[in-house]
Parts: sequence; structure tokens; C-alpha cells
Amino acid sequence: MTTETDTDVQAALLIIGDEILSGRTKDANLSYLAVWLNEVGIQLSEVRVVPDIEEEIAAAVNALRSKFDYLFTTGGIGPTHDDITVDSVAAAFGVPVVVHPEAYRRMAEYYGEENFTEARKRMTRVPEGGELIDNPVSIAPGIRIENVFIMAGVPKIMQSMLEGIRAHLRTGRKVWAQSLTVHAAESKIAEGLGKIQEEHPGTSIGSYPFYGQGYGANIVIRSADKDAIDAAMGAVMNLCDAMGFDMDHPTAID
Amino acid sequence: MTTETDTDVQAALLIIGDEILSGRTKDANLSYLAVWLNEVGIQLSEVRVVPDIEEEIAAAVNALRSKFDYLFTTGGIGPTHDDITVDSVAAAFGVPVVVHPEAYRRMAEYYGEENFTEARKRMTRVPEGGELIDNPVSIAPGIRIENVFIMAGVPKIMQSMLEGIRAHLRTGRKVWAQSLTVHAAESKIAEGLGKIQEEHPGTSIGSYPFYGQGYGANIVIRSADKDAIDAAMGAVMNLCDAMGFDMDHPTAID
Repeated sequence: MTTETDTDVQAALLIIGDEILSGRTKDANLSYLAVWLNEVGIQLSEVRVVPDIEEEIAAAVNALRSKFDYLFTTGGIGPTHDDITVDSVAAAFGVPVVVHPEAYRRMAEYYGEENFTEARKRMTRVPEGGELIDNPVSIAPGIRIENVFIMAGVPKIMQSMLEGIRAHLRTGRKVWAQSLTVHAAESKIAEGLGKIQEEHPGTSIGSYPFYGQGYGANIVIRSADKDAIDAAMGAVMNLCDAMGFDMDHPTAID
Repeated sequence: MTTETDTDVQAALLIIGDEILSGRTKDANLSYLAVWLNEVGIQLSEVRVVPDIEEEIAAAVNALRSKFDYLFTTGGIGPTHDDITVDSVAAAFGVPVVVHPEAYRRMAEYYGEENFTEARKRMTRVPEGGELIDNPVSIAPGIRIENVFIMAGVPKIMQSMLEGIRAHLRTGRKVWAQSLTVHAAESKIAEGLGKIQEEHPGTSIGSYPFYGQGYGANIVIRSADKDAIDAAMGAVMNLCDAMGFDMDHPTAID
């Protein structure tokens, strides 16, 4: 349950994605971005996956950019006909698509005149007002427009783009987490766990059951305040101890 | 690009999900559900991940259940305080939460009087009007209310619930797919690929670049019409052949 441990800077991720929605390709950017953002003090607060349809992308962009401090999009910025993210974001902002001179210069220099094809020139287009995000891997830049960051979908490129924008982000507090594996049905500790949550309102306590080799629950305690996690974890361990349940050592607070 | 190959039955998935948004746990249900739905002739058309906050869940439920034929939710139906999906869906529908007598009977029988704790009784609660979805793995049922299917988050349980609802779903056409790996920069085939897309409007042609051991692009052609895929794939292979690019054998149409 998310409680008042919510920090004050929140982001959303929009995955542009027929290939993800088909189930054939598994998204690899969500968890990387979530962890990266939390390290710089920003909470990933909503994710959407939408198909490669301009109106759907534009509607999601407008819903998410107005609701959160930042919106990251991944996918659809390549040279092929199905890469419609730039056009869709431009439609969301109600601005035209224009060639960015610096993007053009960088790509012309990198590819040389002969290899700077029409398709590659497509990757110099930005929604009017967009600024470039460096792409150390494959040159073709990402784009920032207001609070929207248009990123590549290829994980290696997306990750390299993040490093370049870190300094430009307004950041809040990191949310720390600590987890404890309890080897008992979560229903047996549910009542006690609910009371501990009430008594530790500065934390968010989640219980995630697992089945497979044995069964049990991973108890995850989150807070921007490490001492609050420590106190709540102590209470959870006392509860399990009193009820005679086996536990692993809790993880480090990280 | 999604074109007129869209079939007529569409579903959305709502992942309820502090643990997914934190990046600590990777969702395993999206791709399974997408592939399963397509096999029965339903297209997964949008996915959202929202935090464990009742108003956020309820708002997403209402947005998605009105937009799509079906909505599946995963997560948040266990016995602990952070399991708020039933209450949130009830709020979305504007109905009270009630104990479902058959759910109560099943769980009382399974656990016996002594082990049928208050926490487990929480799992007999449904939004008023909800019907049960069988859970062959761990008894506690999922819930159907109108076009919304409330499923467990644990993949093994979610998957077992799907089998029980298959017969109740209105189904459309399966979208077939075939892919071809081309060992060339996608920008080099972009122009030709765009023309082939225009000439084959009954298909949806996607190009997904990869980097790592070599580089290239996976060309994925989708359609409910296998012959249309066949024709478009022939055109793509001719294009690559004419340009002298190495290709792997295309996959089977599946």
C-alpha cells in the first residue's frame, strides 16, 4: 500500500509497443528505468503500453505528461515506417515536426554524405521545440520536449541516453527497501502485518506470496526513511518469531 | 504500425503493482496473457501498471473496461492489508463489497474451521454481482464482474484461472505472425519496407533493430490472413535479396 512515504517527484513510462503487446518480446526497460529513477530520487508511478497508433500514443502522452513530473517514452524512434513516436508526440503537443539542425549535423558527420540516407534523415526530426538527448551508442539522438523524454527502445541505447539527462532532472528522495522471506502462508501473518502497517505509517509494507520450492511470502518494507524501515522490520521479525515461523535473514536496506 | 488487420475483440491488462513499479520484481503475466489471448482470438491492446492506491486502480479500471471488450487485472487479491483490488474494483463499479457464499463454502471446506482465519475470509469478498473464477492451484477464487476479470498476480495461479474462463470469452480472429532476421542496418531497408507496407495494407509490418553479436533487424509481419503474410514476406525477402543482404530463414507462420 502506498502511504505518505510517497516522495515528491514522480515519473511515468510509456512503452510504444505492438511487439510488447503481442507477447513476443518482453520489455526490458521498465525495471531498469524504475531502479535508475529511484537511485536519483524519482518514483516511477505509472506505466502504460500502447500500440503503434498515433492517436493512442498522443492520448497517453497527454494523460501522463499532465499527471506526472516527467514522462519517459521508449520505442518507435528508428528509421522505418512503423517508427511514429516523434509524429505522435508532436501531435500530442500540437506542434509540427521539424528537422533539428544539430541532429542533422551529427548524423551527416557520422554517416558521411553517401550513407546519410532518407531513412536516416528521418531520425533528425523532432517535435518543434524539442532538444536533443545524446546517444553515445548509435548517434541518432533522443528528444526532450518540456517534461517528456523520448528514448530509444533498444535497452542498451535507452540506458546510455539516461546518463546524459541525469543532471537535468529535478530529483526528490530515494525510497529505500528491505525485504524478508518468511516461510509461512501469508494469511497466517496477515493480521499482525496489517497492525504493523498501521503502527508504522511512514512505511509501505507489501506482502508477496511465492509458490514453488516450498511456499511463503516476501515482506518488502519501503520508506524514504531508513530508520522507519528498521523499526517496522524489527516489528515484523518479532511477529514471525512469536508465531514460530522460519525466516531468512532480511536483505540489506537498499 | 497497426492497420486494418486489427481484429474485433480487444482486451486490456491492468497490473496492480507497487512491486512492479519499484523495478524489484519483473512482471511475468503480460507476455503469457498476450500469447494466450491471441490463441483464443483476442488482441491485447493496452497495458497499464498502477500503484497500490484505490483511486488509481479504480480510475484505470473504469478507463479500460469502457474502452475494451475485456479487462484483466492481476495482483492484489491475497489476504494481507496491501491487497486492495477487490475494494478498488467495487469502487470503480460503485457497488459494495460482499462475501460470496460459494467462495466462503469452498474455502471453509478446504481449510477446515480451525485454519479458516479472518485473513483467509478476506479472500471470499467480491464486488457485489461478481461471479467466481476457479483457482485449481490454491482455492481462493478470482472474480468476474461484467467484462472485468480479477486474477491472481502469482503467474502459476493466474495461468490456471485462464483455463477456466476460456469458454466464457467472445473470441475473434487470431493474428498470425512471421519474422525474418536481416543482417543489415534497418535504415538501409527502411524505404523499401515502407513501400511494401503500403502495398500490403492487410498486414502490419514491424522492424525491430538489434545490437550485440552483430547488428540487424527482425522484421515481423502480422495479419489475421496467413496468405497476406506470405505475400508480404515474399516481397521483403525479394527486397533484401536484391540489395544483397544476408537473411536467416523466416520463422514459421505462428
